[in-house]
Amino acid sequence: MVTQESKASATDSVGLVTPQLFHFDEPLLLRSGKSLPAYDLMVETYGELNAARSNAILICHALSGDHHAAGYHSDSDRKPGWWDTAIGPGKAIDTNKFYVVALNNLGGCAGSTGPTSINPETGKPYGPDFPVVTVRDWVKSQKRLMSRLGIEKWAAVVGGSLGGMQVQRWAISYPECVANAVCIASAPKLSAQNIAFNEVARYSITSDPNFHNGRYLEHDTYPKQGLMLARMVGHITYLSDSAMRAKFGNASSQLESTTRGNLGRDLRSGNLSFGLNIDFEVESYLHYQGERFSSNFDANSYLLMTKALDYFDPSVDYGNDLSKAFESSDCRFFLVSFSTDWRFPPERSRELVETLLKAGREVSYLEVDADQGHDAFLMPIPRYINALRGFLDNAYEELCHAS
Amino acid sequence: MVTQESKASATDSVGLVTPQLFHFDEPLLLRSGKSLPAYDLMVETYGELNAARSNAILICHALSGDHHAAGYHSDSDRKPGWWDTAIGPGKAIDTNKFYVVALNNLGGCAGSTGPTSINPETGKPYGPDFPVVTVRDWVKSQKRLMSRLGIEKWAAVVGGSLGGMQVQRWAISYPECVANAVCIASAPKLSAQNIAFNEVARYSITSDPNFHNGRYLEHDTYPKQGLMLARMVGHITYLSDSAMRAKFGNASSQLESTTRGNLGRDLRSGNLSFGLNIDFEVESYLHYQGERFSSNFDANSYLLMTKALDYFDPSVDYGNDLSKAFESSDCRFFLVSFSTDWRFPPERSRELVETLLKAGREVSYLEVDADQGHDAFLMPIPRYINALRGFLDNAYEELCHAS
Repeated sequence: MVTQESKASATDSVGLVTPQLFHFDEPLLLRSGKSLPAYDLMVETYGELNAARSNAILICHALSGDHHAAGYHSDSDRKPGWWDTAIGPGKAIDTNKFYVVALNNLGGCAGSTGPTSINPETGKPYGPDFPVVTVRDWVKSQKRLMSRLGIEKWAAVVGGSLGGMQVQRWAISYPECVANAVCIASAPKLSAQNIAFNEVARYSITSDPNFHNGRYLEHDTYPKQGLMLARMVGHITYLSDSAMRAKFGNASSQLESTTRGNLGRDLRSGNLSFGLNIDFEVESYLHYQGERFSSNFDANSYLLMTKALDYFDPSVDYGNDLSKAFESSDCRFFLVSFSTDWRFPPERSRELVETLLKAGREVSYLEVDADQGHDAFLMPIPRYINALRGFLDNAYEELCHAS
Repeated sequence: MVTQESKASATDSVGLVTPQLFHFDEPLLLRSGKSLPAYDLMVETYGELNAARSNAILICHALSGDHHAAGYHSDSDRKPGWWDTAIGPGKAIDTNKFYVVALNNLGGCAGSTGPTSINPETGKPYGPDFPVVTVRDWVKSQKRLMSRLGIEKWAAVVGGSLGGMQVQRWAISYPECVANAVCIASAPKLSAQNIAFNEVARYSITSDPNFHNGRYLEHDTYPKQGLMLARMVGHITYLSDSAMRAKFGNASSQLESTTRGNLGRDLRSGNLSFGLNIDFEVESYLHYQGERFSSNFDANSYLLMTKALDYFDPSVDYGNDLSKAFESSDCRFFLVSFSTDWRFPPERSRELVETLLKAGREVSYLEVDADQGHDAFLMPIPRYINALRGFLDNAYEELCHAS
């Protein structure tokens, strides 16, 4: 039996980690025109910064991620950080080679300044008064963190989904600060369908009577049902149809082999209820996911994250020509997409590849056959993980030669 | 200017129509084991039944449809019935040739017995006590309507989506009563992803505090927000990504021509709000659709319709071998699917085609290239409408020769 303690002490785990809070006093002017007078960023680091300060990798998180990307906070932790499959000694993002930095973004709810923080102007939680933050704002705040850590150039900036948007923004806004950009399961901007799903999530939250126009903390409550619904919708879009068929079709797969394939129709109790109860395993799973998420995430943060997704479109400052945005970028790009990801399908990554080539950039691109949909970017899929390792190993060799 | 009156009197319109209520006194034993002691069906008919009573076509409606499939109820009607593009004099379902019968299904909310009807046992609306009805139950009730109309065999049973499931059930349960089966944009059963979206819709409704366990009418209220959300999610799945890009990307299509294609990111006001307001046209459209629908549809009916969708799987009584279910069918089948329909994609229709061929059935199948997603089945797409016309014209000639 593998105990928790042995998990944290496994040779490929970063082990027990302690988040650090960094305070920034200089006001941060945001894209909206508003300003944060001061803010905190919650940060974790894994591995050692080398003497040349050249081996740092920044990890940018997606919608519901945070600074806890790898390892364990205590021996009793059930689960490691959200990207422990990729980060650790000897792993693809190898902490024997790299100094890895992960942070909770502004507006989040895991320790960095966000809607649950106290607004110095009122003495109450910001709540809905926390300003809308954009990917550009996040990258600006990450740049200050970089300076604080004494790093002048990231060996790589790495992120999936919304994290991949931050990677793009780094390459555009601070070309001198990025040696390699790894953008996974992402897109140069959302489509109408993406925005539509985000709006359903937002409306789920804001129409919950416990939302109280975002001031639910002051009412000592929170919009749990709305957050559950938002996550249930989201979760469907993270999984592929085929992943759901496989996940919820084990019991019937033998029976169904006479027709074409398994459709994921396993029943929870073996019989239909002929009532409005939950009948199918997939329904039960969605409720479980919604329940778990809504107990741990701040609703105002969720709203902010979805707006950052919707707003991201770096081409708007370049006459809607994205290739112009990347013209002054000076890093190698590595892009990955997954065949069954219908939230950010391979086509969106190919758009970005073409745009980068048009801008004269160096870009490698891998399209991975994977059943897991958008969620594949978090999975230990060998072809994907090995390619990521290969790209970063090259980056490491280059920086060793440079020093 | 085309006035309403001239619309109803257009030569290809069935014109002004009056629904008829048919009362059935014989109890209907349902699939669940429960029974409806008596029930009403709201029906519209277009065209004339011939002397041989051989030219009748049954139209089966989808989730939110009803008996009002064509024509106008009054000169002031803004819109005709839901399938007016296909039904009328000289149209694909030609009322000069056929006697067309459309009804509101049991459990619906447009006049047939359903949750808003009075439960004779309590003197109050059925509400949540209305029994769960299945596609099989609907077809059983439609069979009684058929007898009442003095029809022994339908020239054709026609339906799209959930309507197509009723078409399949007719061919299985009453093979002697169907000459032709037209099954459009449908599937032999839902996949886990389909069920998941339905469960999100149901949870939206049931978690609305105005739902009151389904007894909202007794509380003089209704779960409007929940129904709105359910419809917003549904609407995204009826449209394709490409249809949404085209629909919400007009203003920017010129600007975006420098990158690849239009993503449907038109802004409502031209500027981002940097708040939690509605920014994009697609959001505004979704709210409009949700608002309109939630003002006209009963929440308990919506729940019942989604359960009927989830439960449909005629193979379960045939050892999960659907081809066995169709072995005694005795009609010609015509199936249509649409390239961008991701709710019931072409693959699901191809499964059905293969199953029908395995069962030794005669089947024609058309896969239509169309941008409109699942909604395409309601659209006047020439290739689709002409094929439907061709199939039914052949059916008509056959019945003329037979008589």
